[in-house]
Amino acid sequence: MTHTDTIVAMATPAGAGAIAVIRLSGPEAIAIAASIFTSVAGKDISQQKTHTVHLGHITEGSRIIDEVLATIFKNPNSYTGEDVVEISCHGSNYIQQEIIQLCLRNGCRMAQAGEFTLRAFLHGKMDLSQAEAVADLIASDSAASHQLAIQQMRGGFSSEIRHLREELLNFASLIELELDFAEEDVEFANRDDFQKLISKITQVLKRLIDSFATGNVLKNGIPVAIVGEPNVGKSTLLNALLNEERAIVSDIAGTTRDTIEDEINIGGIGFRFIDTAGIRDTVDVIEGLGIKKTFEKIEAAQVVIYLFDAQKFQESSSKFQVEIETIKNKYPLKNLVIVANKVDKLSVGEIEKLNETLYQVKGASHLLLAAKTNRGIAELENKLLDFVNTGALRNNETIVTNSRHYDAMLKALEEINKVQAGIDSGLSGDLLAIDIRQALYYFGEITGEISNDELLGNIFANFCIGK
Amino acid sequence: MTHTDTIVAMATPAGAGAIAVIRLSGPEAIAIAASIFTSVAGKDISQQKTHTVHLGHITEGSRIIDEVLATIFKNPNSYTGEDVVEISCHGSNYIQQEIIQLCLRNGCRMAQAGEFTLRAFLHGKMDLSQAEAVADLIASDSAASHQLAIQQMRGGFSSEIRHLREELLNFASLIELELDFAEEDVEFANRDDFQKLISKITQVLKRLIDSFATGNVLKNGIPVAIVGEPNVGKSTLLNALLNEERAIVSDIAGTTRDTIEDEINIGGIGFRFIDTAGIRDTVDVIEGLGIKKTFEKIEAAQVVIYLFDAQKFQESSSKFQVEIETIKNKYPLKNLVIVANKVDKLSVGEIEKLNETLYQVKGASHLLLAAKTNRGIAELENKLLDFVNTGALRNNETIVTNSRHYDAMLKALEEINKVQAGIDSGLSGDLLAIDIRQALYYFGEITGEISNDELLGNIFANFCIGK
Repeated sequence: MTHTDTIVAMATPAGAGAIAVIRLSGPEAIAIAASIFTSVAGKDISQQKTHTVHLGHITEGSRIIDEVLATIFKNPNSYTGEDVVEISCHGSNYIQQEIIQLCLRNGCRMAQAGEFTLRAFLHGKMDLSQAEAVADLIASDSAASHQLAIQQMRGGFSSEIRHLREELLNFASLIELELDFAEEDVEFANRDDFQKLISKITQVLKRLIDSFATGNVLKNGIPVAIVGEPNVGKSTLLNALLNEERAIVSDIAGTTRDTIEDEINIGGIGFRFIDTAGIRDTVDVIEGLGIKKTFEKIEAAQVVIYLFDAQKFQESSSKFQVEIETIKNKYPLKNLVIVANKVDKLSVGEIEKLNETLYQVKGASHLLLAAKTNRGIAELENKLLDFVNTGALRNNETIVTNSRHYDAMLKALEEINKVQAGIDSGLSGDLLAIDIRQALYYFGEITGEISNDELLGNIFANFCIGK
Repeated sequence: MTHTDTIVAMATPAGAGAIAVIRLSGPEAIAIAASIFTSVAGKDISQQKTHTVHLGHITEGSRIIDEVLATIFKNPNSYTGEDVVEISCHGSNYIQQEIIQLCLRNGCRMAQAGEFTLRAFLHGKMDLSQAEAVADLIASDSAASHQLAIQQMRGGFSSEIRHLREELLNFASLIELELDFAEEDVEFANRDDFQKLISKITQVLKRLIDSFATGNVLKNGIPVAIVGEPNVGKSTLLNALLNEERAIVSDIAGTTRDTIEDEINIGGIGFRFIDTAGIRDTVDVIEGLGIKKTFEKIEAAQVVIYLFDAQKFQESSSKFQVEIETIKNKYPLKNLVIVANKVDKLSVGEIEKLNETLYQVKGASHLLLAAKTNRGIAELENKLLDFVNTGALRNNETIVTNSRHYDAMLKALEEINKVQAGIDSGLSGDLLAIDIRQALYYFGEITGEISNDELLGNIFANFCIGK
C-alpha cells in the first residue's frame, strides 16, 4: 500500500522548550524539505545518505525563518517506512507554525492523529498490536505500564499468536482440500496433530486471557480504598507514601506531581488511593448516604485499608471490630489491611495487646504504624505490592493489557472450543472448517492481518498528532 | 576553555508528544551514550561518524527502557562545540525521567539553565549577543520579534561592533606606544584617521541607540489603550481584531490563543490592548479614581483609541469633543485614533455629518467602523501598523532590542564623546588612552570579549534548561 501524499506535524509537545521537532513523511518528504532548506555547507539534501543530519536554514524567499538541523531517513529505513525528514528547530511556537505553514504551502498536508504510526503499520514496519503499544508507551507513567508497553511493542504475544494462526491456517487449508476429494475419503490433515494444535491454542489463549486481569491492574493502577474516620491520619499517611516517591524523583528538573493527586507510584506500580468517609459509629445507620458511598468505593477497590487511631483502640475496640467484620462479610474476597496509626503514642504493653487482638482477625492482615514519623510506611508499601501479581511481570511473561486484544482472544477461544467440540463429536470437515475460519478471523484481528478502515480509525484516533 | 564534565537535559518541552529529545554534551557524551545504547544493527556508536543517526535501545542491564534514535555530533561540529549526543525517545514523561536518571548514574550531571548555550559561547561558537538572541528566538511570538532575534543571532550588529572595536584597539595601542617614546615626540597614530574613526563610531552608536525604541516596541508589542464607556463595543472590536488572526492560524493543530488574552498579532506586530473605563461624563470628576486609572493606562500606551457609539454622537457630541480635547491636551505626543463604532446604524446623512465633525479635530486621525460586521476593521489594522516604524525592519537594518546592549552602547558613547572632547581640546595621549580603554571595555561587554561570571550568570539564568 503506497500513499501519494506527504504529511507533516509537530512531533514534540507544544510549549516552551529549547528545541522542537517537525516530522515530514511521504514520497515528497525529501523534495519538500529540500525546497525550503538551505544547507550551511552548500549541500543538496536530496542527494544525502539516509540517517544523516544537516545544518542549515529554513527560508522562504530571502526571509530566514530559522537555523535548523534536518535529518534524512530514506524508505524503507524510517519509522513509517516512507521517506522521512525531521526538522529540529528552535522551540518557539511562532517558528514551529511558520515552518509547518511553509511545508503546507509546499505540498504537505497536516497529518491526522496517529497517521505516522498508521503508515508504519500499513507499510509492514509493525503489526497492529505493536502499533497500539506505541500509544501505550507514550502514555506510560509507571515502571509497570512502561514495561508492559515495551514488551508488547517489541513483539509480545504477537509472534506467538501469528505463529499459531499460521499453523491453524495450514490445517484449515488441508481440511478444505479434503473436501475436494470427499469421495475418496482421504485425510490430508493428520487428526492427532490437529488435536495437539487445538489443545495448544486453547492453552495459550487461556493463559493470555487470564493475564488480562493482571495486565489491566498494572496498566491502570490499583484502586485502594482507605476506610477511616476524619483525624485518624489519612492525609498524613498519603503524604508519607508520596514523600518516599518524591525523594526519588526530586533530582530531575521539571518533575512535578501536582496532577497525580492521589495516584502514588510504589515500586513501579501505580496505586490510586480513594478516600472514604468511614463506616461511622453504628450499624444502625448502615443505609445512610455516607455509608452507601463508602461501600461503593470499597466495591470499586482491589485493596481496602481499614485505618484507625491506635490511641482509641481500647475505648472503641468493639466498634472497630464490628466495622472490620462488616467489611469482611460484605466483601469476603477483597484484600483487607487493618492499619493502626499513631502507635508511637502507645506504651509497649498497649502495643502488645493491640497486636494480640488483631492477630485474631481472620482473613485480613494488619500493620502498626506511625505515619507522621514514617514508621511502618515501608512495610505498608511491601504489603500493597504483595497484593499485585508482579510475578508475571518479573518473569517477563506475556501479559495482555488491551481490551480489544482481550475481546478478540475471548472470541477466538469460543470458536476454538467449538472446533474442539466438533472434533470430539466427529463433526465433518466442511462444518469444522467454518469454525476454524472464524477463529482465524479473530486471530488476524489482533495482529492486524485482518483489518478494516473502521477498526483502524478507532485505534489511531486515540493517538496524538505527530505520532 | 574546556569543560571536564558532561551535562544532560531534556531539550523538548515536558508534556504529551510523540517524541522527546534528550541532549548530552561534554567530553564523555559519546562514551556515556554508548554505555546505555545498544544499536539494532550491532554498531558501536562511539565509532560512528559525526552527524549520523542510529536506531537502537536504551537499556539498563537486561531491561529495555525504550527504542530510540541516537544522533552523534563530534566536536567542534556541534551546537556547544563539544561532543554531543541527542537521544530521540518516545514522549512519555516516565521514559524521559528514566533515561535522564540513567545518564546521571553513568556520569552525567543535570545541565543548568542555558548551560548548552553558555558552552557554545565559551567555545567560540557564537558571541554573547548571539547567545542572547537564541533566548529571544525561543521566546519570539510574532513575525517582528522573530525577525529581530534571527537577525541578531546571525550576527546583527555584532560584526560591526567587533570591527569598530578592533580598529579602536589598534589606535589605543599606537597611542600607548607613543607614550614609550614620549621624549621623541613621535605620532604613530595618525590623528586624522583617528578623528575619522571616532566620528564613525559616534555615528554607528547613535544609530544603534536610536533603534532601541523601535526594537523594544517590536519585541515587546505595542501597548494600545482603548478609552471608551461600557457598551460602546470594546469587546466586539477586540474580537473582530482577534478573529482575523484566528482565521489565519486555525489550520495549525495545537494553536490556541487562550493565554494571549488581549495581545493581538496584527501584520506580524504584537499589539497589547489595554481596556480602560473611559473618562466618564464630565471634567468635574477628573480626580476620581476611575479616571485616574484611565489616565495611568493612557500614559503607558503608545497609541490611544478613543471609541464611542456613533448612534450617540448627535446627543453627546459636545461631551465627546471635551473628552477628546482632554486626552489631546494631557498627552499631545500620543498617537490618537478616534473610532466611531456601530456606524451601520446611521443614515448616509448622519455618516457625512459625523465625518465632517471628526475631520475638524486636529492632531488625531479618525475611523468609522462597525465591529460587529467587521466593517472598517482592516482600515483600523492598517492605521495601527502605520504608527509602528516598521521601515527599519523591512529594510533589514540592524535594530537593538536588548537593554543590556543598549546600556553598554550608551556608556560606550559617553566615553567616545569624552575621547572626542579630548581630541578637540588637544588632550595628551596618556589621558586620551584612558577614555579609549574605557570605551573598549563597554564594546567588549556587548559581544562578550569581556565578560565575567556574574554577567554570564545573569544572562544564562534567563534561558530554559536544555538550551
